[in-house]
Amino acid sequence: MSDKQKKPQKLKARLPRGFVDRSSADIHATNEMVGKIREVYERYGFDPLETPLFEYTDALGKFLPDSDRPNEGVFSLQDDDEQWMSLRYDLTAPLARHVAENFNEIQLPFRTYRAGYVFRNEKPGPGRFRQFMQFDADTVGAPGVQADAEMCMMMADTMEALGIKRGDYVIRVNNRKVLDGVMEAIGLGGDDKAGQRLNVLRAIDKLDKFGSEGVALLLGAGRKDESGDFTKGAGLGEEQIEKVLFFVGIKDYAESAAELGELVAGTAKGSEGVEELNIIGALATGAGYGPDRIKIDPSVVRGLEYYTGPVFEAELTFDVTNDKGEKVVFGSVGGGGRYDGLVSRFMGQPVPATGFSIGVSRLLTALKNLGKLGQDEVVAPVLVTVMDGDVESMGRYQKFTQDLRQAGIRAEMYQGNWKKFGNQLKYADRRGCPIAIIQGGDERAEGVVQLKDLFEGKRLSGEITDNAEWREARVAQDTVSEADLVAKVQEILAAQAEDRRRAKGE
Amino acid sequence: MSDKQKKPQKLKARLPRGFVDRSSADIHATNEMVGKIREVYERYGFDPLETPLFEYTDALGKFLPDSDRPNEGVFSLQDDDEQWMSLRYDLTAPLARHVAENFNEIQLPFRTYRAGYVFRNEKPGPGRFRQFMQFDADTVGAPGVQADAEMCMMMADTMEALGIKRGDYVIRVNNRKVLDGVMEAIGLGGDDKAGQRLNVLRAIDKLDKFGSEGVALLLGAGRKDESGDFTKGAGLGEEQIEKVLFFVGIKDYAESAAELGELVAGTAKGSEGVEELNIIGALATGAGYGPDRIKIDPSVVRGLEYYTGPVFEAELTFDVTNDKGEKVVFGSVGGGGRYDGLVSRFMGQPVPATGFSIGVSRLLTALKNLGKLGQDEVVAPVLVTVMDGDVESMGRYQKFTQDLRQAGIRAEMYQGNWKKFGNQLKYADRRGCPIAIIQGGDERAEGVVQLKDLFEGKRLSGEITDNAEWREARVAQDTVSEADLVAKVQEILAAQAEDRRRAKGE
Repeated sequence: MSDKQKKPQKLKARLPRGFVDRSSADIHATNEMVGKIREVYERYGFDPLETPLFEYTDALGKFLPDSDRPNEGVFSLQDDDEQWMSLRYDLTAPLARHVAENFNEIQLPFRTYRAGYVFRNEKPGPGRFRQFMQFDADTVGAPGVQADAEMCMMMADTMEALGIKRGDYVIRVNNRKVLDGVMEAIGLGGDDKAGQRLNVLRAIDKLDKFGSEGVALLLGAGRKDESGDFTKGAGLGEEQIEKVLFFVGIKDYAESAAELGELVAGTAKGSEGVEELNIIGALATGAGYGPDRIKIDPSVVRGLEYYTGPVFEAELTFDVTNDKGEKVVFGSVGGGGRYDGLVSRFMGQPVPATGFSIGVSRLLTALKNLGKLGQDEVVAPVLVTVMDGDVESMGRYQKFTQDLRQAGIRAEMYQGNWKKFGNQLKYADRRGCPIAIIQGGDERAEGVVQLKDLFEGKRLSGEITDNAEWREARVAQDTVSEADLVAKVQEILAAQAEDRRRAKGE
Repeated sequence: MSDKQKKPQKLKARLPRGFVDRSSADIHATNEMVGKIREVYERYGFDPLETPLFEYTDALGKFLPDSDRPNEGVFSLQDDDEQWMSLRYDLTAPLARHVAENFNEIQLPFRTYRAGYVFRNEKPGPGRFRQFMQFDADTVGAPGVQADAEMCMMMADTMEALGIKRGDYVIRVNNRKVLDGVMEAIGLGGDDKAGQRLNVLRAIDKLDKFGSEGVALLLGAGRKDESGDFTKGAGLGEEQIEKVLFFVGIKDYAESAAELGELVAGTAKGSEGVEELNIIGALATGAGYGPDRIKIDPSVVRGLEYYTGPVFEAELTFDVTNDKGEKVVFGSVGGGGRYDGLVSRFMGQPVPATGFSIGVSRLLTALKNLGKLGQDEVVAPVLVTVMDGDVESMGRYQKFTQDLRQAGIRAEMYQGNWKKFGNQLKYADRRGCPIAIIQGGDERAEGVVQLKDLFEGKRLSGEITDNAEWREARVAQDTVSEADLVAKVQEILAAQAEDRRRAKGE
């Protein structure tokens, strides 16, 4: 089809590019996961808050990750009073607006959590969506790093509440101030060096991708990639490069702390940063969170440009197989840090704040990998089939259905064209219905119903061969009086649940 | 300030017009309500589905309530490939798109529920928001009115699951086909009369507002309101008007059914519509839902223009006091009906469907009025105050906090500037913290903590005067060893919960 064709085509049902529909299993799994996270956040004394999906564009600008292009990457439109509005890009900028707008009514520190969709107007790609869910927690009005330490503990507790076992995750902590100190120590302090500092930050950011050798090139003259493309470097000298690499290469913080302290000694921010890291470490350890869970780790560089103090990242450390069939560490599922400039742009008054954001779909993928979500436990409804379409018969089918529902059992009467019975059984099969209820004219005359156990002898036959005796005790079809319908359905559902438990080897 | 001022003002934190932030209490209440609705829908065999907030604009057009202005009322923007996208206006049009797009994979009937935000690009006003939540359930591929009957029963069960007692709600049912029959019977059939039929629909729509006398004027020559403005009428003659008013005036359907049958006898759709209403009535009654809960009621006119068969409305019948201090019936909290044209615009193949939509915030308001939401039950966190800021003391406060959390108790260490102790108590008060934990140097040396019961002698003093003995047994302040902290907190929280129960007279 030509790109130039402007004539409207016949109306085609299609999702907008970069957006997805979410299935029942996915929604149940997300609800389960979000519920568990919420429980931890509530226990930590955070309360929910929700802001609308729109903000005025000017209220978002400064908090976009790429501050060079404040209006790119967001979905914007002009309101009828000519003000520009944008769909929120993250959950932090709206919080800043909320705090500033209600500053007189809010008692600081203000501790909230917020779950919701955010939007990125970017070129969609595989696994890159334009609408996705974040789950944030923030403390606004908290000047001390004890608030940052608390964030890290909360993230660790969240991982464990989700069933991720100790050793499979780590919360890594760094501090922007230490890096500022390192930069100052190698002569990159001062406003006139801002550009070069940015290049250093960008070089460091490639540590995972290119390793320390590649980063050394990017910190120096530059790096040529496999295709021959050349990226100009930050132009540092050998000794400068060595010091930066020492910093981001620290594996055991305790061991290197003295040397790091020496490196940044005398700089404006460096020793403050080291002191902060030490306090976070001490508070975490004191509360029982050792370095296997909360680890001071100067190689955390994500968001260093944006944050003003401690930065943290929740990483899952187990291996997964990527698209290319390679084993890789699962990696980050969320991050955060201290952003003391948050509210001041509205207020002209500094308001210290720290927070954490979880990428909900990414964490969901991780939990699916670990088999930590019980979405299979949603049992499909019992199907009351329709054999006759006259009002009286229909009323009876409807009554059976309501009786089951009133007993708390998921149930439905077949609502499609009932005349082809095969369609009804096909529906039950596709839907995964556990039981079909059948009543034709003869059964109606006798006041009985047939129950068909749709799982018996099918789904589980291969799985519980060693339970022959158990299975023999069950029959796939049964006839009971109308009055016994609910009890019999309950009995079959219980037996099926027992089958599932046995199949799982519980 | 002049309207013509174009210069950007100093950045002001403000919500976009017509949008709101939602408070903790509101979010908890909504979650509780939505959870209960979800439970009923699941029991009825519906599964969750979620679509993104954007759709291509052409996929929405036809389903807008006002089909004269397909693009007004929605928030739209152009994607970088020049396709227009809009934020969804309701949850029905996206369902239609989803079904059409996945038609080959979907097993009909397709039973889903969907909760989420929808957007209206309208002039905001008091209580009229541009983003609000709907909660829908739909059965797609269900040709028979038994599916409509089921929708009505589900709505009735939902009302009761939310604690609205029988007699305080009614599900009212009408049928577009009957009205079509009435129109045909009075000579308004045929394509050339479409405009006049629309005027009749709009006149009927004013029944609540102007009463039958006012509607009679609007059906006839026209009506002059109190300000002198004249609205031209539908131009019907006296006998025509009488028949329309007979239809929408029916109070007791059973009593008037014969006369109505006679009126629409011989029309293409009228008798079909009456037959459908009778079946719905019979199925509902047969399943135990009498006319006190599901009522055939030809005065339901909302959405008659949009729906193709049965229409229903969930109405709360108790009185509330409106803004003007008048007692009025609370009214509608949701509605729905059959819309068989749903998917066909994408497919060229008719796909019958029926559904129901609840206005979440309106229903929430109703439940608050009835005192049916337990949002007060969220207990604020226990506050561990900070007396000393050295790392060791801080570590100890942090440890107390973590111990409480690990016991499942909401708790937080004070994260603001700790140096003014008064601020900490003010925070605890504003926040509604139940207990403050205090440990200064002396207590630390002894290994003890002070617990301050912040509710005792304050919040409840006026409420439980007849329980003097109970209250005397409680002291507002207590000192225990660090090891007994958790147990003591649990004891005080339990006593406070008991206070609340007594205060409520339970």
